[in-house]
Parts: sequence; C-alpha cells; structure tokens
Amino acid sequence: MGYQYLDRINFPGDLRNLKEEELPLLCEEIRAFLIETVSKTGGHLASSLGVVELTVALHYVLDTPKDQIVWDVGHQAYAHKILTGRKDKFHTLRQYHGISGFLKRDESEYDCYGAGHASTALSAAFGLATAREKLKEDFRVAAVFGDGALTGGLCYEAINNIGSSNIPKFLAILNDNNWSIAENVGAINKYLNDFAQTPLYYRFRRRVREGLEKFPRIGKPMTFLARRIEEGARGILTSGALFEALGFDYIGPVDGNNIREVIKTLRNLKDIDHPVLLHITTKKGKGYAPAEKEPEDYHGVKPFCPDEGFVETEPQQLLFQDVFGRELRRLGDISEKVVGITAAMPTGTGIVPFAEKHPERFFDVGIAEAHAVVFSAGLAVKGVRPFVAIYSTFLQRAYDAIVHDVALQKLPVVFCIDRAGLVGEDGTTHQGAFDLSYLLHVPDMIVTAPKDGNELKDMMFTALKHEGGPFAIRYPKAVAEPYDPDEEPKELEVGSWEVLAEGTETLILAVGSMIPSALGAAGLLKADRVSCEVVNARFLKPADGNYLERRIASFSNVITVEENSEIGGFGSYIRQILDERGAGARFLPIGIPDRFVTHGKRPLLFEEIGLTPRQIAARIKEFINRKK
Amino acid sequence: MGYQYLDRINFPGDLRNLKEEELPLLCEEIRAFLIETVSKTGGHLASSLGVVELTVALHYVLDTPKDQIVWDVGHQAYAHKILTGRKDKFHTLRQYHGISGFLKRDESEYDCYGAGHASTALSAAFGLATAREKLKEDFRVAAVFGDGALTGGLCYEAINNIGSSNIPKFLAILNDNNWSIAENVGAINKYLNDFAQTPLYYRFRRRVREGLEKFPRIGKPMTFLARRIEEGARGILTSGALFEALGFDYIGPVDGNNIREVIKTLRNLKDIDHPVLLHITTKKGKGYAPAEKEPEDYHGVKPFCPDEGFVETEPQQLLFQDVFGRELRRLGDISEKVVGITAAMPTGTGIVPFAEKHPERFFDVGIAEAHAVVFSAGLAVKGVRPFVAIYSTFLQRAYDAIVHDVALQKLPVVFCIDRAGLVGEDGTTHQGAFDLSYLLHVPDMIVTAPKDGNELKDMMFTALKHEGGPFAIRYPKAVAEPYDPDEEPKELEVGSWEVLAEGTETLILAVGSMIPSALGAAGLLKADRVSCEVVNARFLKPADGNYLERRIASFSNVITVEENSEIGGFGSYIRQILDERGAGARFLPIGIPDRFVTHGKRPLLFEEIGLTPRQIAARIKEFINRKK
Repeated sequence: MGYQYLDRINFPGDLRNLKEEELPLLCEEIRAFLIETVSKTGGHLASSLGVVELTVALHYVLDTPKDQIVWDVGHQAYAHKILTGRKDKFHTLRQYHGISGFLKRDESEYDCYGAGHASTALSAAFGLATAREKLKEDFRVAAVFGDGALTGGLCYEAINNIGSSNIPKFLAILNDNNWSIAENVGAINKYLNDFAQTPLYYRFRRRVREGLEKFPRIGKPMTFLARRIEEGARGILTSGALFEALGFDYIGPVDGNNIREVIKTLRNLKDIDHPVLLHITTKKGKGYAPAEKEPEDYHGVKPFCPDEGFVETEPQQLLFQDVFGRELRRLGDISEKVVGITAAMPTGTGIVPFAEKHPERFFDVGIAEAHAVVFSAGLAVKGVRPFVAIYSTFLQRAYDAIVHDVALQKLPVVFCIDRAGLVGEDGTTHQGAFDLSYLLHVPDMIVTAPKDGNELKDMMFTALKHEGGPFAIRYPKAVAEPYDPDEEPKELEVGSWEVLAEGTETLILAVGSMIPSALGAAGLLKADRVSCEVVNARFLKPADGNYLERRIASFSNVITVEENSEIGGFGSYIRQILDERGAGARFLPIGIPDRFVTHGKRPLLFEEIGLTPRQIAARIKEFINRKK
Repeated sequence: MGYQYLDRINFPGDLRNLKEEELPLLCEEIRAFLIETVSKTGGHLASSLGVVELTVALHYVLDTPKDQIVWDVGHQAYAHKILTGRKDKFHTLRQYHGISGFLKRDESEYDCYGAGHASTALSAAFGLATAREKLKEDFRVAAVFGDGALTGGLCYEAINNIGSSNIPKFLAILNDNNWSIAENVGAINKYLNDFAQTPLYYRFRRRVREGLEKFPRIGKPMTFLARRIEEGARGILTSGALFEALGFDYIGPVDGNNIREVIKTLRNLKDIDHPVLLHITTKKGKGYAPAEKEPEDYHGVKPFCPDEGFVETEPQQLLFQDVFGRELRRLGDISEKVVGITAAMPTGTGIVPFAEKHPERFFDVGIAEAHAVVFSAGLAVKGVRPFVAIYSTFLQRAYDAIVHDVALQKLPVVFCIDRAGLVGEDGTTHQGAFDLSYLLHVPDMIVTAPKDGNELKDMMFTALKHEGGPFAIRYPKAVAEPYDPDEEPKELEVGSWEVLAEGTETLILAVGSMIPSALGAAGLLKADRVSCEVVNARFLKPADGNYLERRIASFSNVITVEENSEIGGFGSYIRQILDERGAGARFLPIGIPDRFVTHGKRPLLFEEIGLTPRQIAARIKEFINRKK
C-alpha cells in the first residue's frame, strides 16, 4: 500500500519490533489509512482518529492478546482492528460478510469482549480480572471508555464495585474527548472539563483565602505555604476527587495524542497492585481537519471525499427520524406541555428541529436511558407531556423503568422508538429486533407502528391526545415517504387498522416498515391467483376488534409480517387474540428469526432472513399449500 | 388508641398544629404504633423505624401535599402513611384489599410518586421539579433515598443530570443508615462511612504535613493556620466531595434521629435556589432494640411478638430460595469455577450457604443488576461459571445486559430467577409476571422452570454442565418440597419434558409453580370425565420436540398453565411451535392476565386472577365445551 511502517505490521508482535521513535510516524500512517478506507466504507471515524496513539501505545506496552483490552462500545477501535490482523479486510468494514464496525469475540482473539452499547467496559473488564484471580492466571486488563460512557449508570455501578475491590493489574482508561456522540452533557462533563471551575476547588480556594485574611500581616513564608497547600490540593480537588473518593488511584490528565507520554504512563501503571484510573485527553477527529472541526458530523459517516470532506448533495429523501423531529416541533408549537427527551442522541434521533425551536423544553440526559424514562415519568405526573426518543436497541436499557415507573402508574409518556427493526451496517448489537417483544406484554401500553411519514405525523398527534397511559411508536431506519408537512395532523382512532388492499382468501396483517414488502408479496401472489387482503395493523395493541369481528371469519389463512423477532412479537400477540375469538384460520407469523442478525445493508439482511417481497410471497404460498 | 399526640393526628395539617417540643414524643408514639402494628401484619419494619424523625420533620416543615416528597423504594414510608390519612387503615398493611406496603399514587394524594424498586427517586423528583418550572407552578420537591440506592446506577444518572441543572427548591436527602437491605457494599459505602479514612482526606493531610516540614521553625501562627485550612477543607474533602464534584451543594452529615436538628436544617434548605444534597445519618431499626441489633432480620418481617422479638419456631418447610443456596454450595464444592453473584440480596435470594462456604467466590455487587450481569459476562469469557441470583422483577433492570452482553456472546451465565410469578404481599411493583416474556425471545437462551426442590437441584447441575450459552432457571416464592439434599444431582436432557399424568383428550403443559394446580385441575376434570395428560414442561425453551412429535397429534386441546403474563410467555411460545408443526389442536393459554396484579397472599391473588385448581379446571371445561 506504500506505507513505510504500516505495511510491515499485521499483528501487535510486528508493532513491538518498531523503535519507539518510529511510532509517531506509524500513527500518521494509521490515520491516513483510516481516513482513506472509511471515506469509502463509511463508519465511525472521529472516535477512532482520536485514539490512534492510545491504541498503538496499548499494543506496544501490553502483551496482547494475553493481556486484555476491553474497548467500550467498540466504535473507537478501528486502529485496534488494523493492528490485530484485520488490516487487509478493513475495506470490508461494516459490509455484509465483511468485518464488523464493533468488536466481536468471534472475529479475533484480540477482541476479548464485544460491545456496541456504551458503558459496559468496566463491568466486563472487572469480570475478566476477577476470573484471572479466581483461576490463578496472569494477565493484565485495561478498559478504555469515553467520558460519554461516564454519563451511564452502569459505568458508575462498576466503579463503585471495583473501587472497593483492590484488584491488581486493572487499568481503567478514561478517554476524555469532551464528546459522547453529540457534545457531552451533565455534571460529570462539566467536572472533567473545567478543572479550575469545579465547586470543590473554588470552595477550597475561598477557604484558604478566608484563612489568610485572619492573619493579614504574616508576610511571605505564610503566603508561600498557603500557595503550596493549594497547589498540592489542586490535583486532589479537581479531576481526581471523584474517582479517588470511590477507591481508584487517579492519574492524569495525560495528553492522549502524545504517544511518548502515553507509553511512559502505561509502562508505569501496567503492573500496579490496585485499580488505577488513567485520565487521558484526546481530540475527537484528531488529524483530519474536517472531523476535528465538526466531530459530531464525523462520528458516524457515510462515504465521503477525503480531500474535501462531505460534499453537499441534493437533499435526500426524508427518513422517519426527520419526520419525527419536524412533527415534534409542530406538537411543541401546539402545546406548551410537550417536552422532548433524548439520551445523548440529538442528531441520530432527529430531535434537533424541536430542540432548536423549543430549547427550554429539550432535554439531553446523557447516555442514561433508564433515567430518561423515569425522569419522563416524573414529568408526566405533573401534567407535562414527554416524548422520549430512544432507539429500539437502547430502550432495552429502560425496560424496567417502562414497566415499573411508567406503565404501572399509567403515565402518558410517549416513546418514539427509532431504528426499530434491522439497522443495517451497525449490525448485531444494534438491531432493533425485540421492542415489540418487550413492549406488547406491558399492561396498559399502547403499541403502534406507522407505515410512513404522514402516519407518523398522525400517530404522534394521536399520542398527544391520549392522556390515559403510555404510548409507543416504533419506526425503522428507512425513508418515510410519503410525507406532507403542510397537511395538518389528524387524530387516529386508537385500535384502528387500515385496509390497504382487499382480498378474499388470505389476510396479511403487516406492521409498519413491512407494509411495502407485504403489498409487494400480495401483488406477486395475485399473479399466482392467491387473493390477499393487506391490512396496515398500525395499532398493534390494542388490535382492531371491529375489523376482526367483521372480517376474520372470511379468511382461511392469516399471516403477520413484522420487522421484529417472531417470538413474543405482533404475530404471537395476534395469534392469541385469534384463539380467543375462536377464529378457525390457519396462522403464519413472519418476522425476524430467533437468532442474532449480522451487519450489512438492510436489503441484504432482509434477503438473508427471508423478508423480501419475493420471499414473503413464497413463504405464504408454501404455507397455503401445506394443507394437512 | 391511647396516644397523647398521635390520636389527634390524621393529616399533616394536624401535625403542624403541634409545638416543636411536642414532636419527640410524637415520634415515640409513632414508633410504638409501628412496632405494634407491624408485629401483627408483618412488613418492612427496620427502615421505617429509622426515618420517623425525618418523616415528621418533612411534613412539619414542608407544605404537603402541595410540596412533593418522593420516597425511594417506599418501604421506609410507613410513618408517612400514618401521618397522611392512613393511620386507621394501617392494620391492613400489605393485606389483600388493604393498603400497600409501598407508595402508590392512587392510594393517597400525598403519594406523589410510586415505587418499589430502588434508586428511582432522584430521577422522578427531578421530573416533578422540572415540570414545575415548565408549567410555572410553585412547590418544593424533596427526594429521600438510602445509601443503598446510591449503589444503583440510575441514581447516579440522575445526580449527573440534576447537578448540571441549577434546579431550585430541590432537596435530595440521603438517608444514610449504612444498610441497603443487607449490609451495604461498594466504594460509595466505604466512602460515606469512613470519612477520616477517605483517600482524599488522607492525601490532603499528608500534603499539608509535607508543606509544614519545609518550614520547621515557623511556630504557632503557621500551625494554627494550617490546622484551620485543614479543618475548613475537611468538609469538602470527605463526604461532600463526591456530590460537590457533581454540582450539588452538600450539607451534612446531620443526625437524622434528632428531630430538632432535622427541622432546623430543613427550614434552612427548603427554599434554596439550586440543588442541595442533605446527608443525614439514621439508625436502621431505631427505637426497637431487636431491630437495632439485627437490622437485616427486621428489614422485612413476618408477624412477631413485640416484647420478645422473633420467637424460634419449628423449622419451616424449605423454600426454593433455600434449595438454591444449598445447591449452589454443592456446585461450588464440585467445581472451583462456580461463583455466586447477588445484587444486594444475599438473604432474600438464599445465597448465604454458598457465600459462607465459598466467601472468596461470592460477590454482592450492590443494587446494581445490570452490572451484576455484565460482570458475569466478563467472568464467563474467561471460563468462570457465574450463577447470578436476582428476583424476576429486579432482573428487568438487566434486560439489555442479558441480550447485549450475555446472549449475543453466547456466554454460559446461569440466571437463577427467584420470585418468578406472584410474590404476594410486596405486590404490584414486585410481581415476577414478565420474566418468561422478556427471556423467551432472547436468542440462544435456555429457559427452564423446575417443579420442586429436587428438580431445581437437577436443573442447576444441568446448567453447570451446559457450556454453550446462557441458562435461565425461574422459580417461585413457594415451598420447594420434595427436596432430598442427600441424593446426588443428575443431569437432565436439555429440552426434555416429563409426563406427570397420562391422558387422552386434552394436554396440559404446566410450568413450574403451576404444576400442583394443573394436577389438581386435571383431577377435578377427571371426575367430569375429561381425560387430561399433564406434562411438566420444565424446559420452556427449547421445548421437547420428541414429545411433541410423538404425542401432539393425539390431543384435540392443548392448554398451557404458567405463572407469567399470558402475553409473550410460554403459552404464546408453544402456540407458535404447534402452528409450525401444523398441530390441529385447539389452544388455550392460561397465565397472569394482561394487567398489573395487586398485593395480598398468593392464594388470594391466584383466586383473583383465576389460577386456582378449581378455576383452571372450570376454564378448561368451558374451553372444551366452547366448540364452534
């Protein structure tokens, strides 16, 4: 490839043959390689650029793969992938049958722990280190996590547990780039990034001054002493206090983009006999000017031109997330009670238009999904109408809060669940395959799935009108056309379905994102002389009792099609209703099969799991013909 | 009732008519009333005894119900109940149709937010206070949470969010009794309870000393100044540092059992214009000697004799939790790789026998269910065999960790899920009604429900032998007889069912705790000449394909009976399998209906939801006769 050092490196063993003074150049080459490749594949660029030096230093100083590096989330681990046997496959990043955009245990022995969700690294690494102690093995453990991860409670649960443990050879590395995905939020962020302004330090200085004022005439030695005490205390009182209070030895902050500094520090710390927190500061997007300037834009990127950065293109078709943001802005205009809540994903969830129009009613609570939901419950108690925008996969973290805080108290919290269904390139850890399965059994929960942008608009409006309890709206990572922003939203009848195509023999109940495919399948089946009625089952719970009463006896086959696990989803829910009604129709649920689904473009994944129109038609036909 | 003050008080308005000097006596009366009543009803005694003064002080100083008190968990709020209109009903505590043992919004306007799970109070209270700001209302918000709650990440997510908010009239009250339910664990606990030993303070003193050593001859003024600085800094450097670092004003510690002190402090703080954390120390079990001595024993109590405390009785029948603890101890003897993990519930989960025998392999991680599971995943990566004991209702908090960390990585973590099904007196917030619904759709998860102690023994042994992925064992709050500890455990074939009673027309697939009722129902039906085969469906997933292949065609009716929501549970899972096999039998799922279930003794609750043998028999008969 024409890289002086990188061409010689396939594994960390090769890296360790380099001289220390050659490493800065290697880092430059890795950056060039990263930018070059990710500009073609797309991916998480900015985070990985920031930790090139840290990655090189870790593999240089530690004895990987025997020593264990746990990367939180994993999207900052591209350099790690390049240095651990995956350089030649790196151009397949996030592509179907290519390497994953996150760490995966079955991809490399250097990936000792997989992840995709934030804040797990410390808990997992503590597990690895504890196992080492119990099994009397010998290796070092390092966990790398961002300052964003520190807004998640799981991270703190781990710190609380580890800090009381005295576990040796355990290095917690806080990669502080002042960003999670969006600009970071919360007290911990202020705390880390504004040392001199921390209330602790401020108060301490004030008290020292007060002390001095009692003795106005003591002169130099005293002032000098006071300054010494103040300086000595400063390290304790500022960034370290929090971690020291919880039992860690705190070291830092260290410039994480200075490789000599990082290597020196790691050498000092790697064998220490108690838990150490190393605080490094890095620059998100480091070494690529457009990404340094706009790190959020370069957090997760589509392919781009490396020389020019993003090129303005024609406006794209609107996605569901775009409609969500615009419609929440509209609801905010309609009612002053509407507030919008995100857990560190203002851009991803599309909530920005609302946030810009109604900044005082917008809340980014950090990577803290459970708190987002309980906070919303508290808001709803007092008559505020919270719309909580969280991806399907991340809302898994708030499942108990949904049950215990919202549904049990029948509070009108609206859940706007994006990325429901397959998310594509982010892959296994991020698939929204379970939200229907973890919501449909929650009592008093209304669960819906609009078919397009216009119906999302109406559904959000309907949710605002519904004051009797929680209301969930799930929608996919997909184009939301048709969507007409000029037409006013209208209230839908709760529990009403919509007949999209009339038919006689077979009923297809299609859920949200699967409606175009269901219609496609029905078209193919029609050519085969199978008459299908296709219904938009936009309300999954409650189902449309009127429709069922009126029509169900007409059909000999009922098919559900949903972008959710076949287990516990809409299919199994409606199957039960059919049984209760004594409906005699045969039943086929079509959804995501009972396994984890890999990464790749959505159409390829649909093909793999049998959810293309052609496959759906074939499955229905085979089912109909499978008469006993 | 013969109480000088308490007899005159029904609501906080009455309380506020008392003079401040009368309050200590009132507190004594409340304690006497609490001990008297709870000795008859059973309930959470020790926590409530500790906060009598705080409760009286809060209602005395604040303008409730306009001002809002959010009690974390709620089991420490008995005095609150007594003072807010429920004194006369207090003898119905935790009884069917009586008042709840926790706070409930529909029980009283003074219960502004309900709870049963820990660590939610700060998030919810921040919601209330934020709603106040947005709706331009005017009231104060106080959240009371224990030091145990601080081991939960949700609490920290809230602190991080609130600390950066500058919300006025927001008082976070840390009720520090050095206990959660069991003795508290983790760094935060050390931190709170050992001020002078905190590394922060220790380091600071050392540096001050080092400073002084530079000037050995400065004499008195200098020493005095240094001492002043040290003293001034102490408040910042010890218990307050953590909270101050995160943006709260820290006040404390204050003796929470000294009512004058508490009242004075609350008066000072109630209208402050930014978030304040008030740290009070209380004695769990305060005022009742047996409870002060053994607070864990008196956390949740059965009825007892107030004069003598608990009276030794005949050994009770063993519960599933008891069998779990003994069998985990056995597995620990068999394999050194076995470790046991609890989230702050060593006694409740029954893990104590294991913990005592193998203390170095026992981990109490605090009220931190998600961390417990991710930590277990890390342990399992390295070949350790973690058995995680968490109640069904609390495991809801680790749902994402189960999916994302354990199942996705196919790690052999064993989930021992107690209190699966109805828990009785703890009621709505604690019912284990959903674990099958949130586990069956998780790919690669084995889900089981043993029918008695012997089968739990075998199932745990089977789980140890199963190294291919996660393994869940659910069992109820019920007697586990028969159980023979002397017989060695045997390995069960994964996916095998057991025929308990042969029959011809109707198949009853019964799950764990429902087996006795299913057998009872089958007996009743036999008398009605309905022949039922009753099968112990001990493996819910995978189901017994051999049995189905061999037998399913024989039955015209299939019934499932489970102590789990009818939605998304075993019924809907098996229904799908029957459909896939083209089984023609009619199907009836019997389980917990789609609503939240109240508190009361389990038999009464079963009666209410139709799960007694007689009701099950009647439902099956009605179903069979409902031929179309």
